[in-house]
Amino acid sequence: MKQVGDIGERALVDRLRRLAPGRPDVRAGIGDDCAVVRPVPRGGADWLLKSDPVIEGVHFLPTVSPARIGHKAVGRVLSDMAAMGGEPAWLLMDLVAPAEAPVARIEGIYRGAAALARRWGVAIVGGDTSRGPVLELHVFGVGRVPRGEAVLRSGARPGDAVYVTGALGGSAAGRHLRFTPRLDEGRWLRERGWVTAMMDLSDGLASDLPRLALASRAGAVIEAGRVPIAPAARRTRRGRSPLFQALADGEDFELLFTVPARRAAAFERAWARRFSLACTRVGMMTARAGVIEVEGGHGRRPLQTAGYEHFA
Amino acid sequence: MKQVGDIGERALVDRLRRLAPGRPDVRAGIGDDCAVVRPVPRGGADWLLKSDPVIEGVHFLPTVSPARIGHKAVGRVLSDMAAMGGEPAWLLMDLVAPAEAPVARIEGIYRGAAALARRWGVAIVGGDTSRGPVLELHVFGVGRVPRGEAVLRSGARPGDAVYVTGALGGSAAGRHLRFTPRLDEGRWLRERGWVTAMMDLSDGLASDLPRLALASRAGAVIEAGRVPIAPAARRTRRGRSPLFQALADGEDFELLFTVPARRAAAFERAWARRFSLACTRVGMMTARAGVIEVEGGHGRRPLQTAGYEHFA
Repeated sequence: MKQVGDIGERALVDRLRRLAPGRPDVRAGIGDDCAVVRPVPRGGADWLLKSDPVIEGVHFLPTVSPARIGHKAVGRVLSDMAAMGGEPAWLLMDLVAPAEAPVARIEGIYRGAAALARRWGVAIVGGDTSRGPVLELHVFGVGRVPRGEAVLRSGARPGDAVYVTGALGGSAAGRHLRFTPRLDEGRWLRERGWVTAMMDLSDGLASDLPRLALASRAGAVIEAGRVPIAPAARRTRRGRSPLFQALADGEDFELLFTVPARRAAAFERAWARRFSLACTRVGMMTARAGVIEVEGGHGRRPLQTAGYEHFA
Repeated sequence: MKQVGDIGERALVDRLRRLAPGRPDVRAGIGDDCAVVRPVPRGGADWLLKSDPVIEGVHFLPTVSPARIGHKAVGRVLSDMAAMGGEPAWLLMDLVAPAEAPVARIEGIYRGAAALARRWGVAIVGGDTSRGPVLELHVFGVGRVPRGEAVLRSGARPGDAVYVTGALGGSAAGRHLRFTPRLDEGRWLRERGWVTAMMDLSDGLASDLPRLALASRAGAVIEAGRVPIAPAARRTRRGRSPLFQALADGEDFELLFTVPARRAAAFERAWARRFSLACTRVGMMTARAGVIEVEGGHGRRPLQTAGYEHFA
């Protein structure tokens, strides 16, 4: 099997360049010192910038299929754009690989990345390939949102209803490699002005809701019985209950957002008319800044946070 | 000594965030799903996007001081923006490090990166920290240039004079860690309309000039006696002559560009009035597409390219 070291950097870049999706607003893509893009002037826009890595042994196992790795790498960035209510436009991808990496595997990763990008009309306009001890992708994305309309984490108010899309938990069973970035939903939520704060669930509700609460200088209570649990998390595993998995597994890449309580009923009806994807009210923001609680059969208890810690 | 694994990801990010330089046009920096930036509307602009990695063992040795690593990581991206005649605005930095990495080293790297960014009025608005086997930085940059004015590699014409800034070679002696991105020079060259093509010298003149020629569908001849050789390359090392080092060492991060021959004399006078940095005419573009030659004591010979190959 041909390895990256056999064909060399230039031939590798030539192959990858052919796989990269384009867009009419790309003036110069892969091959010059920088990519040059020319946005259509369309009212005032704010720009969204995001980078996310996927690293072998950290974000995926060596046994994962290449297309899934590429999908995850691009999907992570698109999910963050979705969480701002934004529209992604251009991506760059830094690839790190050992010289022994099979060329076909690298191309497969790139194809998976390109397929997801193309589906959302996003161009891959640049990047770099470099030698390193393990396989890594670092994806950098640029998107935009009408001026002043980016949905931050910091706008939630006490009393706001807390929602999540989809179902949570069980990412280790493969969901973290197959997720759909919630771009349509994020954009709709922003356009219709339903949301006061939003973020994507990358580390698990138990880690991410405290971040949203902190940014909003508020607290929150999760109603245990309402948390939507993904099929992959519905059995106790390694002594971890389904609820625990739904709160702590991470990499759900669903949206977490808040809606003013007085608008909650109208919002739920509008959502149901627009999307088939589930959207579940899982709790409420409170005035007890920094305090996150779970309300279950035994009353309210402080949440035990247990999300993913990178350097643990 | 405190290690990254001791303090954890959140505390590390908090420390790094405090070191990140800002700009008035940053609406939301590190800490939300994406960074949000609001460009000042100023005529039509094209946007420049670039990513570049620096990896321990590939782009720097483990013994290199942290500030130099950060300087190099940011400088590489700024050098590419300079080569388009552009103005960098915002950066994101993905950091990869083993859990045993000393916190002080990571902060030192970040300080070096921040110092160079700040010097050019560039904000660091986001990024990611993740665990991995060796230390790496992936820097993503966004800059801009007036609409249609980005200086590409593809505009050189047969007969154009070929120039380089500064002096070449000897990067291994430390120059690759200390270089100044030629942003003032690149912008001036673009604004005054002197240049037909430009790129930065990252892999050495012997590798990079063929790229410029290829993009321009032209050939080139280098006059051996005119190549400016850096002091660090003026002695024969490991059997490699000073000229060979100047052509092949790479990582000069100087500008390589072309000027129409009829304007060359006026250009050289204007440059000398404006900059103290050397600018040397090293050859000429030719009509022999893809053929790169060296003219020396023995007449014209084909150039032996010998730049850095990442997967060799």
